[in-house]
Amino acid sequence: MKVDVCFSPALYPYYHVDNDNTIVVVVDIFRATTTMCAAFKNGVKSVIPVASIEEAEAYKAKGYLVGAERNVKRCDFADFGNSPFDYTAEKVAGKEIVFTTTNGTQAIETAAGCYRLAIGAFSNISALAEYCNQQGKDVMILCSGWNNRFNMEDSLFAGALAFLLNEKGVELASDAAKVACDMWMQAKPNIRAYIDRTEHIRRLTSNHLADSVEYCLAFDTVSLVPIYDKEKKAIYL
Amino acid sequence: MKVDVCFSPALYPYYHVDNDNTIVVVVDIFRATTTMCAAFKNGVKSVIPVASIEEAEAYKAKGYLVGAERNVKRCDFADFGNSPFDYTAEKVAGKEIVFTTTNGTQAIETAAGCYRLAIGAFSNISALAEYCNQQGKDVMILCSGWNNRFNMEDSLFAGALAFLLNEKGVELASDAAKVACDMWMQAKPNIRAYIDRTEHIRRLTSNHLADSVEYCLAFDTVSLVPIYDKEKKAIYL
Repeated sequence: MKVDVCFSPALYPYYHVDNDNTIVVVVDIFRATTTMCAAFKNGVKSVIPVASIEEAEAYKAKGYLVGAERNVKRCDFADFGNSPFDYTAEKVAGKEIVFTTTNGTQAIETAAGCYRLAIGAFSNISALAEYCNQQGKDVMILCSGWNNRFNMEDSLFAGALAFLLNEKGVELASDAAKVACDMWMQAKPNIRAYIDRTEHIRRLTSNHLADSVEYCLAFDTVSLVPIYDKEKKAIYL
Repeated sequence: MKVDVCFSPALYPYYHVDNDNTIVVVVDIFRATTTMCAAFKNGVKSVIPVASIEEAEAYKAKGYLVGAERNVKRCDFADFGNSPFDYTAEKVAGKEIVFTTTNGTQAIETAAGCYRLAIGAFSNISALAEYCNQQGKDVMILCSGWNNRFNMEDSLFAGALAFLLNEKGVELASDAAKVACDMWMQAKPNIRAYIDRTEHIRRLTSNHLADSVEYCLAFDTVSLVPIYDKEKKAIYL
């Protein structure tokens, strides 16, 4: 078993991903995948990820609940933005919801053809590590980044998950996986201080959206692993 | 002034590079840019970088001296491979040579339209930092990577150069620039041990090409900055 890390959806085509044998973990810490995990904890039945605003609007017109965000802000037509606190049990339990965000849902689309696509966040990291170990497959951690650019928070998560898997004997497959682990070792004593240097904290703060940062960085508040069903094009538990 | 880092030519389109105002430093530590710096030290007049084997063969047929490498090995038709030791003063002084390598020359092609493209390596890092500071422009360090994938050695160089510029007051522009600097701070006490973990050391060693590793990691063995002339499509001092 090997674990690899891809720092951007734009780099994904250059990495070896065996579509019959690799679990791809998609991560967007701030905030798409953290938010999806929160929605599943609150009982959402399924999340239909769509890459474009147009698709999300079409679902809205058909009566679906829709979460839609671009450049950290909620889209006007949508029921929810991209904050994990928006998706309360009262609003989402038992529902199918549609979801589109600046980076995370694009990353899902990029890897949709893989053997199995799992949704990862700090909030479900231990459940995810356990899931990957049980499956016994190679793992590729795909960072959503920011408009295809490298970002610290997704890469840090990749390092944390790679580290957990490596502790169980899974090999680090590449330079990227090793550097991500180094990032994790450096950040571990004070994750918040490490993350306070990121570009995205500035974006969230300047849009008065920093309230979810602590939640997005907290480990194991959720013990479930959402999985993308490529036939149904939706995410389920 | 800002310094940014792009970890792969495939990510370059997603970064803001002002073609009137940004110096792009292309780096391929193992070994294209280190080798170019060595060739200039040994008196080469110019290096014509070409992206494809076919172009290099066409130049060879016209009588040019040609350096050509793919997947660490010298191409059969070529006069030189990609080792800095191939380009001795006896062979290259006063000559125009043609050069194609797996990653470095592709990276040059990617950024060829920029305001100014400089060739960077550990061997000319201080001269390069001084050059960038004198120019007073923003700097983008473009890592050649390996087949568009992230690699440690080019990113480490990017961190070292960003660190030198940052010490002189140049701002780190992005998460990527900050992580590259962190890599440099971690590696600095023992660069060789840090680099011995890379994928590329394994490639060089298994092809009996590890003899140039020490040279490629040595600082300031050259005090010149090769610059790409976009009109002439060749690199000069």
